[in-house]
Amino acid sequence: MMAGESYLALMGHILVDLEAEMKAARQEQIEISPIFWQIVDYQFGWDLGPDQAALYQKVSGKKARPVLMALVAQAVKGDYQHVLSAGVALEFVHNFTLIHDDVMDHSPERRHRPAIWTQWGNWQAINAGDGLYALAILASTRLIKQGIAPEKVVRVIQSLSQGCLWTAEGQILDMDFERRESVTTAEYVTMISHKSGTLIEAAAQIGALLSTDNEQIIQAYGQFARDLGIAFQVRDDYLGAWGDEAKTGKSATTDIREKKKAFPILAAYEHANTADRAALRALYAQETLSDDDVQTVLMIMERAGAKSRTDQIARQYYDLALQHLESTGIQNEAQKAIRQFAEFLVERAY
Amino acid sequence: MMAGESYLALMGHILVDLEAEMKAARQEQIEISPIFWQIVDYQFGWDLGPDQAALYQKVSGKKARPVLMALVAQAVKGDYQHVLSAGVALEFVHNFTLIHDDVMDHSPERRHRPAIWTQWGNWQAINAGDGLYALAILASTRLIKQGIAPEKVVRVIQSLSQGCLWTAEGQILDMDFERRESVTTAEYVTMISHKSGTLIEAAAQIGALLSTDNEQIIQAYGQFARDLGIAFQVRDDYLGAWGDEAKTGKSATTDIREKKKAFPILAAYEHANTADRAALRALYAQETLSDDDVQTVLMIMERAGAKSRTDQIARQYYDLALQHLESTGIQNEAQKAIRQFAEFLVERAY
Repeated sequence: MMAGESYLALMGHILVDLEAEMKAARQEQIEISPIFWQIVDYQFGWDLGPDQAALYQKVSGKKARPVLMALVAQAVKGDYQHVLSAGVALEFVHNFTLIHDDVMDHSPERRHRPAIWTQWGNWQAINAGDGLYALAILASTRLIKQGIAPEKVVRVIQSLSQGCLWTAEGQILDMDFERRESVTTAEYVTMISHKSGTLIEAAAQIGALLSTDNEQIIQAYGQFARDLGIAFQVRDDYLGAWGDEAKTGKSATTDIREKKKAFPILAAYEHANTADRAALRALYAQETLSDDDVQTVLMIMERAGAKSRTDQIARQYYDLALQHLESTGIQNEAQKAIRQFAEFLVERAY
Repeated sequence: MMAGESYLALMGHILVDLEAEMKAARQEQIEISPIFWQIVDYQFGWDLGPDQAALYQKVSGKKARPVLMALVAQAVKGDYQHVLSAGVALEFVHNFTLIHDDVMDHSPERRHRPAIWTQWGNWQAINAGDGLYALAILASTRLIKQGIAPEKVVRVIQSLSQGCLWTAEGQILDMDFERRESVTTAEYVTMISHKSGTLIEAAAQIGALLSTDNEQIIQAYGQFARDLGIAFQVRDDYLGAWGDEAKTGKSATTDIREKKKAFPILAAYEHANTADRAALRALYAQETLSDDDVQTVLMIMERAGAKSRTDQIARQYYDLALQHLESTGIQNEAQKAIRQFAEFLVERAY
């Protein structure tokens, strides 16, 4: 980053370069049938023409993980070009998990458009996700051509795959929680640490390991990102119960209405008095919750101190994340940008 | 292979060593939640106790791909220990595709036991498959610890991932064929070459590339295996229409009854006279086929020469496969074992 170059300008450069590298990785696999690309192009908004730039902005995704990876590389080594292929791999992996998750959650929309399964059916969505996973690993091997030592490339692939394994396991735990009667907040934090934290951890870890051999720095960035991922998810849960709809674009109380086993309700269960806990159990045994039911749940949450507990846990992991970031000892413009990025991710809509 | 050691003894050694390496790769990931391992252990028969050895034999799978990889390594380098981790990776990938395929095909059984989705539901099956895919890549990186050069490990991962990408694309094509009105035999062969051929190709290619730097030999083994995979699938289609139930354990005419778009029916479509083609179209537009309908289809197939055409295509790819095998110029006991393996795979139940 040039001295004085703004945070937004740096982000802009990274996004443009990532986009170009994504297209290059796609181009390498042009022999793969158009029916595969039709689905995958749609996921990334590559089906849109140059005259649909505004829509493209909405549907192409914010690429938070590769951007974080690039920022870490910039902070550690003063450049990010050498991590772009790994960033693309991570973005492909992330999108593979989104495509599969949308099928499983029956979520009709993704980034303001119908989700893939609504257009091509559940199974073709699963197949396209599987292919995108393979494409991700192939994208990461492009690092070889870019002069990265093969030992490092293998470590990148290990970090990426370990993140994928934890993410799949976290998703299994999450779906298992839905059918279980009770889940502790501690179990929940473990689950989101696996399901939401490990790919963000991989992002920062890979950004660092491609930029230094200092294992302490590599680990510190990884831990920073994992804790940031947990903070982000708990904060997201907070907004799902008490968010400002105007600011978040997500209806407050959505999670309650959908009876999602998110942090606030689990905290309420854990700390409610006996009568309230029985009331919660009865409400959550119902098929659906009425407006009045939602208000009752909110009141019980209030009495159990769920709001402040949720806020406190999000802040606690955010603070931990920042401590890990500081422990790297790195101080420069890009490191400042990482802090801004983290703040943007977690503090949004406070 | 010791001089004079039999084909079966070599196969036995390979299977024992593969099994040990699979367990070692599992052991490395012991921190992953038991709920993940419960599903994956079941897939490999690792849930069975030592007193259930007979059942274990039935449910643990024949491991054809890693066995082929080991045989190629043995033929090229006189040893197979150095490819075991890659073989395990391939076996994990293969099982990930089986788990997903069983969900999509709604197949209730796998290896004489209920399929995973019947026990844990569709989505946990998809999740476990996703995790197994990541585990496969991680297993392949164990080659590093075993002294394989990182450049080679990256090539192994590329070969594996390219196979996975083609397999996913082939599966997309296959499901697309089911909804299309007409599919040519040429399109069908392309599809099975991707869906069934590319992972077998990866098996032989990886076995060779970990054992030699001779690119011509590496490519020849790969092409041998891909053509073998095509021959196997077309032969399987033959048996699905005209197999001897007593020998194959698969009811002849099953594929016809299920209206599967397999090679024989596509060949019949392609070569039937106008009246027969119209009759076929009418029959396949029906919801189900009666016994009489199946007999009519068989008669039309007979008239169109579908039986001899199917047989001919299977033999043609088998011959091509053997030509590629010969082109390696390698002649030893292990190469003989590869030939026996190929014969067993394709010629079964002639």
